[in-house]
Amino acid sequence: MSPDVGAAPGAGSQPGAATGAGMPFRRVALIGLGLIAGSLAHAMRAQGFTGQIVGHARSAETRDTAARIGLVDSVYDSAAAAVAGADLVVLAVPVGAMGAVAAEIGPHLEPGAILTDVGSVKQAVIDAVGPHVPAGVHFIPGHPLAGTEQSGPESGFATLFRNRWWLLTPLPGTDPAAQDRLVALIGAVGAHVDVMDPAHHDLVLAVTSHAPHLIAYTMVGVADHLRRVTEGEVIKYSAAGFRDFTRIAASDPTMWRDVFLHNREATLDILGRFTEELFVLQRAIRMGDGQHLHDYFSRTRAIRRGIIDAGQDTDAPDFGRVPVGGAARDKG
Amino acid sequence: MSPDVGAAPGAGSQPGAATGAGMPFRRVALIGLGLIAGSLAHAMRAQGFTGQIVGHARSAETRDTAARIGLVDSVYDSAAAAVAGADLVVLAVPVGAMGAVAAEIGPHLEPGAILTDVGSVKQAVIDAVGPHVPAGVHFIPGHPLAGTEQSGPESGFATLFRNRWWLLTPLPGTDPAAQDRLVALIGAVGAHVDVMDPAHHDLVLAVTSHAPHLIAYTMVGVADHLRRVTEGEVIKYSAAGFRDFTRIAASDPTMWRDVFLHNREATLDILGRFTEELFVLQRAIRMGDGQHLHDYFSRTRAIRRGIIDAGQDTDAPDFGRVPVGGAARDKG
Repeated sequence: MSPDVGAAPGAGSQPGAATGAGMPFRRVALIGLGLIAGSLAHAMRAQGFTGQIVGHARSAETRDTAARIGLVDSVYDSAAAAVAGADLVVLAVPVGAMGAVAAEIGPHLEPGAILTDVGSVKQAVIDAVGPHVPAGVHFIPGHPLAGTEQSGPESGFATLFRNRWWLLTPLPGTDPAAQDRLVALIGAVGAHVDVMDPAHHDLVLAVTSHAPHLIAYTMVGVADHLRRVTEGEVIKYSAAGFRDFTRIAASDPTMWRDVFLHNREATLDILGRFTEELFVLQRAIRMGDGQHLHDYFSRTRAIRRGIIDAGQDTDAPDFGRVPVGGAARDKG
Repeated sequence: MSPDVGAAPGAGSQPGAATGAGMPFRRVALIGLGLIAGSLAHAMRAQGFTGQIVGHARSAETRDTAARIGLVDSVYDSAAAAVAGADLVVLAVPVGAMGAVAAEIGPHLEPGAILTDVGSVKQAVIDAVGPHVPAGVHFIPGHPLAGTEQSGPESGFATLFRNRWWLLTPLPGTDPAAQDRLVALIGAVGAHVDVMDPAHHDLVLAVTSHAPHLIAYTMVGVADHLRRVTEGEVIKYSAAGFRDFTRIAASDPTMWRDVFLHNREATLDILGRFTEELFVLQRAIRMGDGQHLHDYFSRTRAIRRGIIDAGQDTDAPDFGRVPVGGAARDKG
């Protein structure tokens, strides 16, 4: 796992020195080699990036896999070695690991380099990483709203970011030229950038992501308890709706543990609202208030239409799933 | 909307007089012309059924659409007229409408005919329909675990039932030969049959379908309230997880109102367990108990694997969704 001979760490980059298709970087270091980092590497290559992409992962197994499949040009055993000479460093580790990684790489970051991250929580990452960023390095926190339920160095693919939003939460005083360079890279891999305040990001994501994930985990956990009672029927008959929840509840446990622990207040706030609302609907069921239920379900149907119209999901029924198994295997 | 000249209502069928590819019926009447009935018609035709398929829907608009697209051979203005001469009658209306339809058609059912339904709740349908079934008619309640978030006469497609479970909850004393004929039809359209007790069906479906649907409706409703605060951000950034919930929460409001009102006890029981479990996880977040969260999320991940291994969902990441929009439309 030694670096490529041609890696040329230590050579600083010049803003605007584009290396392929509007991606103004020469050497990109990915810290963490999971779904997001791997997809970024694939997407950059697919878009013609001709500079270096190097990486580090804490797990030796992940490093070995990444090296074997050629995910990046060079895999380094230490994060500090990986970032040397990089003009862009992307922290793609669980939110709870950001602070330790930043402490390790801080002294090794090149002056003028851009440091970003892909964490699903922003204020906690800013608090953890910020103190370790040396003067002259541009720290621009980010979060691509893209992912699948899969994880690890082999799960990435070049189109993950296509037509997705990539949120940036820059700190006051961020160098506009540095931000423009990062935005150019994000645009080159197919995503759209929005800029917002970190606290607002954390609230919006609590609604659109964190609370839904915890709810899906919970529903699948309830079914798991019952599965032992009903002898596998929950799995067997999951196509009635439940299986949708299991996809979300198959997401990486470490990543999501850290998300909840680091966006605690906003997530608990939304879950509190959820529980209130659930109780109102449970009461409507108990009291037989069909009108309330019908009105509620009609409103929620309209939201799906809004998401499809906004280009954020497919219009195909059932997400366009292809049925598993080409034909009936059993007549009775 | 007059019947086809060749419809020949009134001609009784003989068990075993198969009309195409192992579907032992001559004239099938579909009461209700939505997603399930339409898919059944498409699937039977695709499998070579050469007998008649006729139908009725309460809504004139639905009847017009069904006639225009040729969903069935004949569309009748009344359910009673549609069932005359049919050797299989399928009730495919919302659970809350089953009783009234059964009362209307009961006197017009042919001796020897099979009457089934596709309701998502079984005990309530048995209670509502049973009293209207004349002697000599075989009432065999059923429930195909298949559907999409779409509804109406144009939403059906021939592969909806492929590799799905179709549960039957026959009453004591059901004629085995009649049940075999229904099972043959279900097998011919690609589904697998399981037989169970109605009360057990209603409990299993509360876990795998009814509670997940109410939870999805609730989460989308919460986001709808917040959407007004956050100016469309919930829709814009829905790809972070939330959009999965919106698919389920786009399901037919009337159908689902009736499901909850008619499977009240089992649904409320599962929702009670869900809330308890949610509170335990909320507490773990509040107390910072990362180990509890990680262990929980690791268990739920395994369930997804079980569902894929059981052939009940695709292994493709993100359900195999195809990204909307071929390329970035916006660079900033």
